[in-house]
Amino acid sequence: MKNMDDLRNLFLQALQQETDYLKQRLPSHLFAIINGYLQGGGKRLRPCLLLMCAQAVGGDVEKALPAAVAVEEFHTWTLIHDDVIDHDDFRRGNPTGHILGSHLGKEAWKLSDTVAADYGVSAAILAGDSLQARATEKLFDLNDFLRDTIFSLVFNMTGRLTQDLLAGEQLDVEMSHMSWDDITDETVLKMIDGKTGALLKYCAEAGAALGLDTPIEDCKTALQLGQFALNCGIAFQLQDDILGIYGEEAKLGKPIGSDIREGKRTLLACRSFDTLSTENAALLRSILGRADITQNDITTVRNLMNGKPLESVQNDAESYVQTALSCLEMALAPSPCRDALHDFAMKMTKRVM
Amino acid sequence: MKNMDDLRNLFLQALQQETDYLKQRLPSHLFAIINGYLQGGGKRLRPCLLLMCAQAVGGDVEKALPAAVAVEEFHTWTLIHDDVIDHDDFRRGNPTGHILGSHLGKEAWKLSDTVAADYGVSAAILAGDSLQARATEKLFDLNDFLRDTIFSLVFNMTGRLTQDLLAGEQLDVEMSHMSWDDITDETVLKMIDGKTGALLKYCAEAGAALGLDTPIEDCKTALQLGQFALNCGIAFQLQDDILGIYGEEAKLGKPIGSDIREGKRTLLACRSFDTLSTENAALLRSILGRADITQNDITTVRNLMNGKPLESVQNDAESYVQTALSCLEMALAPSPCRDALHDFAMKMTKRVM
Repeated sequence: MKNMDDLRNLFLQALQQETDYLKQRLPSHLFAIINGYLQGGGKRLRPCLLLMCAQAVGGDVEKALPAAVAVEEFHTWTLIHDDVIDHDDFRRGNPTGHILGSHLGKEAWKLSDTVAADYGVSAAILAGDSLQARATEKLFDLNDFLRDTIFSLVFNMTGRLTQDLLAGEQLDVEMSHMSWDDITDETVLKMIDGKTGALLKYCAEAGAALGLDTPIEDCKTALQLGQFALNCGIAFQLQDDILGIYGEEAKLGKPIGSDIREGKRTLLACRSFDTLSTENAALLRSILGRADITQNDITTVRNLMNGKPLESVQNDAESYVQTALSCLEMALAPSPCRDALHDFAMKMTKRVM
Repeated sequence: MKNMDDLRNLFLQALQQETDYLKQRLPSHLFAIINGYLQGGGKRLRPCLLLMCAQAVGGDVEKALPAAVAVEEFHTWTLIHDDVIDHDDFRRGNPTGHILGSHLGKEAWKLSDTVAADYGVSAAILAGDSLQARATEKLFDLNDFLRDTIFSLVFNMTGRLTQDLLAGEQLDVEMSHMSWDDITDETVLKMIDGKTGALLKYCAEAGAALGLDTPIEDCKTALQLGQFALNCGIAFQLQDDILGIYGEEAKLGKPIGSDIREGKRTLLACRSFDTLSTENAALLRSILGRADITQNDITTVRNLMNGKPLESVQNDAESYVQTALSCLEMALAPSPCRDALHDFAMKMTKRVM
């Protein structure tokens, strides 16, 4: 059995070949933007999960590598467009696509700041578009599988996966304009389902479908592992939102307080409003979404969310992990590969970065 | 034989079914943006060309309708993102995606102008992304064809078509920042090849491949009709650029002078710089790309481009039509369907809108 590090290394080799290919094929600025994300590190959760699921059902992980590259590319195009939409300038310490694009525009044509910023956004939109299509095309590199299997992967990627993910993204944008009073737990969870859950579900389904060389729809194991991954994804996001308030800057690689500054709609914030006194709720409302927060404000938010709200979200995250583990046990008989997926699920709420 | 109006009507019925479906499936703002384009009229050149080619090789056009819808959707997502990139507020007299999005944001959450504009851009990016994926997924509705045929259509759409088109779009953006001295005929033609030619080529190839139920790559007729359509596309764009200077506002549905105001990099402009005196070239350079042009400036540009530059581009457009017709004659034996495609090519340079 290959462990997660082995799988990540296999993936990174395949990714290197892919970036060599993209460098030849794409306009240089679009390639630079894409490459900045693909080489920018990250946990590679999605390709690893796909390969772990392929292995767990007895498949050959090397043959499934094109799909691992495809899901990382898919994840990446959504990040590039997401960063444009959120006006984020950095990701994992690197400039985001539109920022890198604006630098490249300045270098190439001595553009003013305003024109360069506009060029950067254009280039990032086109880079994301290009990578969206490439992620699908990449699935056709899966040579050793039945046509019906590949068909199912392509169909589900362009259908359910993309539409669910974008519906989640759109809901996220819409929620940012809604007042806290109009935001329910259900809305937040629906957003997480799409924005984070849909792709992890797809990764598990695709991995299992490839491992068994059968279409996703016809493969109970793939669907069960999909539910496993979806629940892991929700737990992951709930933990992410907790770390956005209580995490340490050095470990996360993004400034603490940015979720507070953006007034990010999280389950943790919703639960806080549910339990706080009118006075404290007003205080929290006055801090969330303010651009000029101080260290004191961060401490205030941490205190307001502490206790019941924090505990209830932590409990929820744990119970999503438990649901994930039940799905896993239904999907697979005990094996070292299943244990590896068990560990994967456990990490969702234990991680500090 | 079904004529172009018959085919357009068949297409419009299929499109109506598709928009009914999208309305159910998509977040309401994303649907509204997409629907504004899909229902916004237009010549429907691309789906008609696809169906004409399917018919010309003896295929059943009704069975090919999902592909006709797919190429119109494909065209539409590129327009939505293009309008964001070009900051265009209207298309065919209707508000573009980001403008409609900003209105919807104001309506829903009483956003300020600035925040609404930002929301509109976000929604237009996501609407385009959604439609890009849907265009590919739509090809899986082609039920009456061999798997290899559908495979080829999906592979070519996500591969060559998208990458060529986006490379053309990126080149267009890059050229807008380059000085006129650095822009050659070859660069302009490469841009047109990608931005306009690639999709028309795909439409002809896909139509013929479906009509003969065979993969594009294995189908000489499809490839020849692809060359026919590519050459039509270049002629179309050259004529479009001529109309951008000499056309009548009422017929075009876009303000005359917008190409001048944007300093659009066209073959006509390049040829003008090639032939003008230093003094006149400086005059032309001073007008192209200026936001505050007058009716006098438009007349000046028209005069400067008249004569040799205009004639040379008109001649080029005609010779692309002639090349298209040669490809057509190689591809197909004489028939009423071939005559219809002949007429299609002839319209490229005869049109006034």
